[in-house]
Amino acid sequence: MSDALSPLAPKHYPQMPQVEGVRLAAVEAGIKYKGRKDLMVMVFDEGTEVAGVFTRSKCPSAPVEFCRNNIAGGRARILVVNSGNANAFTGRRGREATALTAQAAARSVGSHEDEVFLASTGVIGEPLEADRFSGLLDDLVKQAEPAGWDDAARAIMTTDTYPKLVTATARLGDAEIVINGIAKGAGMIAPDMATMLSFVATDAPIAAPVLQQLLTKATGKTFNAITVDSDTSTSDTLMLFATGKAAMRGAPRIEDVRDARLAPFRKALAGLLKELALQVVRDGEGARKQVEVNVTGATSARSAKRVALSIANSPLVKTAIAGEDANWGRIVMAVGKAGEPADRDRIAIWFGGIRVAHEGERDPDYSEEETSAYMKRDEIVIHVDLGMGRGKATVWTCDLTKEYVAINGDYRS
Amino acid sequence: MSDALSPLAPKHYPQMPQVEGVRLAAVEAGIKYKGRKDLMVMVFDEGTEVAGVFTRSKCPSAPVEFCRNNIAGGRARILVVNSGNANAFTGRRGREATALTAQAAARSVGSHEDEVFLASTGVIGEPLEADRFSGLLDDLVKQAEPAGWDDAARAIMTTDTYPKLVTATARLGDAEIVINGIAKGAGMIAPDMATMLSFVATDAPIAAPVLQQLLTKATGKTFNAITVDSDTSTSDTLMLFATGKAAMRGAPRIEDVRDARLAPFRKALAGLLKELALQVVRDGEGARKQVEVNVTGATSARSAKRVALSIANSPLVKTAIAGEDANWGRIVMAVGKAGEPADRDRIAIWFGGIRVAHEGERDPDYSEEETSAYMKRDEIVIHVDLGMGRGKATVWTCDLTKEYVAINGDYRS
Repeated sequence: MSDALSPLAPKHYPQMPQVEGVRLAAVEAGIKYKGRKDLMVMVFDEGTEVAGVFTRSKCPSAPVEFCRNNIAGGRARILVVNSGNANAFTGRRGREATALTAQAAARSVGSHEDEVFLASTGVIGEPLEADRFSGLLDDLVKQAEPAGWDDAARAIMTTDTYPKLVTATARLGDAEIVINGIAKGAGMIAPDMATMLSFVATDAPIAAPVLQQLLTKATGKTFNAITVDSDTSTSDTLMLFATGKAAMRGAPRIEDVRDARLAPFRKALAGLLKELALQVVRDGEGARKQVEVNVTGATSARSAKRVALSIANSPLVKTAIAGEDANWGRIVMAVGKAGEPADRDRIAIWFGGIRVAHEGERDPDYSEEETSAYMKRDEIVIHVDLGMGRGKATVWTCDLTKEYVAINGDYRS
Repeated sequence: MSDALSPLAPKHYPQMPQVEGVRLAAVEAGIKYKGRKDLMVMVFDEGTEVAGVFTRSKCPSAPVEFCRNNIAGGRARILVVNSGNANAFTGRRGREATALTAQAAARSVGSHEDEVFLASTGVIGEPLEADRFSGLLDDLVKQAEPAGWDDAARAIMTTDTYPKLVTATARLGDAEIVINGIAKGAGMIAPDMATMLSFVATDAPIAAPVLQQLLTKATGKTFNAITVDSDTSTSDTLMLFATGKAAMRGAPRIEDVRDARLAPFRKALAGLLKELALQVVRDGEGARKQVEVNVTGATSARSAKRVALSIANSPLVKTAIAGEDANWGRIVMAVGKAGEPADRDRIAIWFGGIRVAHEGERDPDYSEEETSAYMKRDEIVIHVDLGMGRGKATVWTCDLTKEYVAINGDYRS
């Protein structure tokens, strides 16, 4: 949790409504930070179903391995998240810590351990002393209440400068359902699974396999389309919990992803995930500008996304944006290094609405003054048309500033 | 050319001997910089053979395309290099500029245009006004003399803080031959072809196809094993010129790469390229530390190199090193994100001789104090053993500092 608020922080935070069947609580467990809450629980009523997507790192954290084992069961009663220690690369002791936490968590809600989900975020490679907080879980579960979203979002922060909370509603049959989501991000943010941690809950009655398909699909254009620094975390976790309580208000139970009644929910979920993902980018370590990279005219959508990520991950592009310099030459460089089909002499590049280059050279109408004025904005849109085909993709990132280096050269000490 | 000398700069520069058959000159052409030389020629006697490797960027500069066309001919009479403008992404006008320069250069040495080689380094996307310097070539060629290496190395600098010069000798048959090399680097440095520009000349009589094989092979473990910022330039060029003049001193002409007499030359060339490559890393933009990354125990050499590059390119690893923090957790992260075969619980990690982690967790004998003392050095060696197989690779990089961001946020203005 950094002292200085990101200049891209939201002007105000949403009032989070209740999600029926979900209760939350957070506490100061003293895992690493002092004077702030660092342990939170999300408690679910019986019958809650769950889906999740996780980091593709070959060295995942112990909690990620734990959750992967449980997610296939599709049932959740409690989520336990701590900040300050990622419980990653902690070997046998890491597994012991997840086992101990899972036992205590299951006991506190009277469930099986396969209905427990865990996440940890913070420093990698330090043993997590789970016995320091496993004794707190009973009390936390008792204290948990439906209005605890804000506290929970704050408890999972690390170098985030603001909590990330989004809420949405959608029609499901004749009922209105609620979706609430929280996230934390800041550094070590890249596909695949961009955010380190995000948890979304709804009262919609949707079966776990459907939740999983919705979540996987929506991730590609949201959390897997953002990058802060190209570094993929060992701990990336996104989970979607559905309590089903809206059934009592008449919402139909959905068991087939092709069910036409799902459309509004699908759209609301995608919008909520995108907003959470953008909040993560806007709170990227040291970020001063949000950058949207649109690539069109690629030979395929996959190729477009690779080119877009090459641009969004380029240190030279990101530092130029930090310097408010419309250095489109570096964008050409990033297109070239992506290795995807491209023809230099067909490329066109825009900053905002200003075309700076086309047909392989500087636009004859290029105005340094006009472009420089645009670069002073805090939301920059880059559009590259490759002129090869119809493939397109959008990714989001932030600029690379001296503050990023400062935060990350001084993180552990 | 930056004001502040890199703290990793050489303590002294070598006295460059003559390479018989090579003459050099440099001049202040005023392309972009003021008060310094920015245009150089290397003039070769008749009979000089040449090989080259170039950027794999899909958007190469006009000079790279020009050189690629000529390299197959294997003959060189003149090399013309300017700094301040890369003549990249300059479209039709870029091709016109290379054509104009090539005509003037060919005229000045009385050769065909297919024996001319060109390189440009500097800002991308600005038209290069070749007519501003093509008129200077006649005089430059006349002034060129065998002792001009230092001037030439300085004329090709951009954000480099020091000129890069290396010389070596080797036995070829009964004769001693000379190899001289210069390079410029600084930013936009990554495989494939790490350095932006490097030119090597020898008096050894070696046929162009043999030169090409030697150069391509040696590049993999030298220039293609370094990375400053993962950004691949549009202009990366490495050329090797052989005048053959040592034949007059009894050196045998080599026409087969398997010729046993080549061994000392091969070794000397590899050593020289490695030293030039390391000088580029040590002068990486904002660099304060040289970092060697050794990966062993991978399933193949190719896999080892990918893991090593994932570590060497990770902003989080590089900022931690800048902060003198032995944050091996971030190394685990970088291993994990590489996507190569790895088993978290078999990984061991050393900083210098200090093992900080093994079998998937912190080394029981880990001493924060000892490791912190090591991290204060200006040359850091990271060794990761994956415990999977016998594949190994070494790459070199530098740390990521606030100065990198400052240099690159303020480059064009």
